[in-house]
Amino acid sequence: MLHQFLKKRSITNSSDVWGYAKTIIPGGGELISKKAERFLPGQWPSYYHKAKGYNVWDLNNKKYVDFAQMGVGSCIHGYANSKINKKVISSIRRGSMSSLNSYEELELAERLIQLHPYSSMARFARTGGEACSIAVRIARAASGKDGVAICGYHGWHDWYIATNIGDKENLKDQLLPGLDAAGVPKNLQGSTYPFIYNDFDGLEIIKENRDKIGVVIMEPTRGVKPLPGYLQKIRELCNEIGAVLIFDEVTSAFRENNGAWHLLSGVDPDMTVFGKALGNGFPISAVIGKESVMNKATLSFISSTMWTERVGFTAGVANLDLFSKQKSHEKLVYNGKKIKEAWEESAKKTNININISGLDPLASFKFLDGAENVYQTFYAQEMLKENFLVGSSSYSCTVYSESILKKFNKKTLEVFEKIKFINDKGDKVENYIKGDLIKSGFKRLNS
Amino acid sequence: MLHQFLKKRSITNSSDVWGYAKTIIPGGGELISKKAERFLPGQWPSYYHKAKGYNVWDLNNKKYVDFAQMGVGSCIHGYANSKINKKVISSIRRGSMSSLNSYEELELAERLIQLHPYSSMARFARTGGEACSIAVRIARAASGKDGVAICGYHGWHDWYIATNIGDKENLKDQLLPGLDAAGVPKNLQGSTYPFIYNDFDGLEIIKENRDKIGVVIMEPTRGVKPLPGYLQKIRELCNEIGAVLIFDEVTSAFRENNGAWHLLSGVDPDMTVFGKALGNGFPISAVIGKESVMNKATLSFISSTMWTERVGFTAGVANLDLFSKQKSHEKLVYNGKKIKEAWEESAKKTNININISGLDPLASFKFLDGAENVYQTFYAQEMLKENFLVGSSSYSCTVYSESILKKFNKKTLEVFEKIKFINDKGDKVENYIKGDLIKSGFKRLNS
Repeated sequence: MLHQFLKKRSITNSSDVWGYAKTIIPGGGELISKKAERFLPGQWPSYYHKAKGYNVWDLNNKKYVDFAQMGVGSCIHGYANSKINKKVISSIRRGSMSSLNSYEELELAERLIQLHPYSSMARFARTGGEACSIAVRIARAASGKDGVAICGYHGWHDWYIATNIGDKENLKDQLLPGLDAAGVPKNLQGSTYPFIYNDFDGLEIIKENRDKIGVVIMEPTRGVKPLPGYLQKIRELCNEIGAVLIFDEVTSAFRENNGAWHLLSGVDPDMTVFGKALGNGFPISAVIGKESVMNKATLSFISSTMWTERVGFTAGVANLDLFSKQKSHEKLVYNGKKIKEAWEESAKKTNININISGLDPLASFKFLDGAENVYQTFYAQEMLKENFLVGSSSYSCTVYSESILKKFNKKTLEVFEKIKFINDKGDKVENYIKGDLIKSGFKRLNS
Repeated sequence: MLHQFLKKRSITNSSDVWGYAKTIIPGGGELISKKAERFLPGQWPSYYHKAKGYNVWDLNNKKYVDFAQMGVGSCIHGYANSKINKKVISSIRRGSMSSLNSYEELELAERLIQLHPYSSMARFARTGGEACSIAVRIARAASGKDGVAICGYHGWHDWYIATNIGDKENLKDQLLPGLDAAGVPKNLQGSTYPFIYNDFDGLEIIKENRDKIGVVIMEPTRGVKPLPGYLQKIRELCNEIGAVLIFDEVTSAFRENNGAWHLLSGVDPDMTVFGKALGNGFPISAVIGKESVMNKATLSFISSTMWTERVGFTAGVANLDLFSKQKSHEKLVYNGKKIKEAWEESAKKTNININISGLDPLASFKFLDGAENVYQTFYAQEMLKENFLVGSSSYSCTVYSESILKKFNKKTLEVFEKIKFINDKGDKVENYIKGDLIKSGFKRLNS
C-alpha cells in the first residue's frame, strides 16, 4: 500500500513520511494546522491514501475515524461525498477549463446572493486568504482610506501579517504568539489596527483613527458569540467614519445556519468572505457584497486564470444545494453538541477541569489542570490507539452516525479515566507519552 | 441545452449571458483575459458547456475549434485530457481532502526538483499570482531587503500593483496601460523598481538601488528571447548586490522544453514560480528553489487550507508524467510553428503587414496596417462564422491534428483575403463589423 516513491526511500511507515517531507518542503507542508507537531509529534500518520465519510486511511492502509477537524473544517458533508463528487466528476468529464467562462460561476453567485439579501454581487477566488485580500483591496478602493481595523484571523497575506512588524505579539490574540513578520514590507507598519473581540472599549481605536481607517474586517464569531449590541455598535461606527465593514466568515459560515453566521445576528456587513466549507473541500472561496462597494472592483486589477476553473464552482453549487435540501446546519449543530457532551461528561465523571468553547459545529476544548499540552498529547496518543484522530478541536460534519458519536464519547471517557488513574496513583501523565509533546506558538510549530 | 437558470431570466443565447454576468459579478468574471470585450464584443459566446480536446461547446451546444488560447495557456494537453482526468477522478473518489496531508504533494515536489537541479525544496499554492507572492515573501525574508525589481507580469497582488501608485503608466510595458492602483496601500509606493526586458542599460536602476533591492523577479522570456548575456548579467548583478533572483515562469514553463524555460538559457535563478500549464487547467501553482532561500519560508507565516487539497497535486503529477513520456514540448513547438505559419503565409499572400512574436507555443500577432483593433475584430468575427475561436494570441496544445491546423491555415487565409478585397475596392473593413470593436487598455477592458 505504501507508495513506490516512498519505498524507494526506505520509508515504510506512514508517520515517518512527515520527516521526509520537511527535507523537500519548508516546514513540511502548506498548512500549519495540518502539522504533525500540532497533533501528536512522531506518532501522527500525517498522510492519507483514502478518505470517505468520516474515515481516513493512512499510507499503510490503516483506517481511522476522524474526530480531528474534518479537513480543517472544510468537509461538512463528509469526505468524498457521493452527491457532490458526482457533479464534480461530471464537470471534469465535460472539461474543467476552457478559453470560455464557466456558467457555474453565475449559479454560485446567485446562490450566495439569494442567501444574503443585502448583497447583489460576488467575486470568487480559490483560498480564504486570497478572498480576504480581494475584499480588502475592493474596500480600500471604495473608502479611499488605506487603514484596516482587524479582529480575528484573516490569512497569510502582507496586509494582515504587517500587523506584527515591530512587535511579534500584536497578533497573539488573533492568530499565534511569536509570529515574525519576516518578508512583509516594513513600509506597511502601522497600516492595521487590531482590536479585541467583544471589548466595547477597544473600539475606541477605530474612532480615534477615523481619518485613516477605511476598512473594518472581523470574524463576527468564532470561539465565542458577540455580546448583545457589539456587532451593531461596529456597524454604526463604520457608517459614522465611512469605513467598509467586512465580515470574514471563512470559518463561521455554513455551520449553525444556511449561509454566513451573521444572518443570525441581524447585522449586515457591506461585504462577506467565504471559504473553507463552501466547496466541501474543493478549493473555492468568495466575496459577496453591496453593489455600491463591489463594483469598485472594476477600478482595480484583480484577475487570475485559475479562478475561472470549473470544479470549484461546481462543488460550491452542489454543496450549497445539499446544505439547503438537507438543512445540514441542524445536523452540524446536533453532532457538534454531542462532541461537546463527550468532553463535558468525561471531564465531569473524572473531575478533570476543562474549558469548552466555539460554535457547536466548531467545538474546542482545553485542559485546565496541569500542563495543557501533556494531557492533550496523551489524549491524542490514546485515542489514536483506538484508531481515532483527535485534537483540541473537533469540527462537526453531517455524516457522523449516532453509533460513532457514542463510541467517541466512550473512548474519550476511557482516556480521561486513564489520566485520573495516573494522577490518583501519584504518577505523571508525561511518563506515559511515547513521542514528543504537542507544540504550540508560531516558532516551535513552524520549524 | 441552455440552462434552466438562464431560461428563467429569458436569456436564450450564449453570447447574451455575458451581459447578465456583469450585473452580478463586477466586470463580469474573474479573469480579464477571458472577457468578451477582448475577443469580440457582443458576439463572443463567453460561456461553455463542454470542452474536449481542442473543441469547446457553448451554452447553445454550438461546437467551436479553439485557436484562441486553450484555457489561457493552461491546457497544453487539450481539454478534459483522458489520462489526466482518470488520475484526478480516482483521487476525487478516494477523497480529495482530509485532516491529513496528500502524499501527491511530495510526488509533485520531487518531479519539479528533479527537473531543476539547482533546486531542492518546493512550496505550492493554487494560482500563479499567489505563488509569485509567496516567492517574494520568502525572498524578502531571505535577503532582509524589501525592494523588488520587476520585469514582466506577476499577478494582481499589492506588492506588484503598487508599482502604479502615483503613475498609472508604470506598468504599461509589463501589463496594461492606464491601470489604476486603486485599493493598494499608498505606503507601498516606491517599493518596486520596474525595468525593461533586454535593456542592458536599464539594469542600472538595480545597481543604483543596491541597498534597497533584495529581490529581482522577472519573466526570463515571453514575447521575445533574452539577448546573449542578458540573463547572465542579471544573475551576476543579484550575486553582487545580495538579491534573490526569481524567475516567474507561470506562463513560459512547459512550452519549449520539459520544465522551466530558463533551463535552456543556462542561467539558474534562486527560485522559480510555476502556474498555468502545471496542472493542465486544474488549479495548482508552485515555487521551487535553493534550500538556503526556501527554508526562510519557515520564518514567515505562509499557510492555507485549500493549498493542501489533492486534485491540484494529482493533476500536476499526471500532467508532468504525460509531458515527460510524450516529450510534449516537441509537439507544442511544432504546432505553434504551424500557427505562426498560417498567419505569416496569409499575410504574405495578401500583402497585409503583421508582426508575429512570442515563443512558438505562445504565439501572438498584430496587424500593422490600419487600425489594429478593426482588423483584429474582423478576423475574430469571420473566424467565428467558421466556428473557430481566435484572438491575437494562439497558445499551442499537443492535440491539434494536422488536418485542423490545415483548416486553421485555410480559414485564416480566407479572412485575410476578405480584408484585402474590401480594401482593394476602396471600402472600409469597419463597415463589415456587426458588434463593437475589440477593446484594449485597462479602463475600457475592465468596465
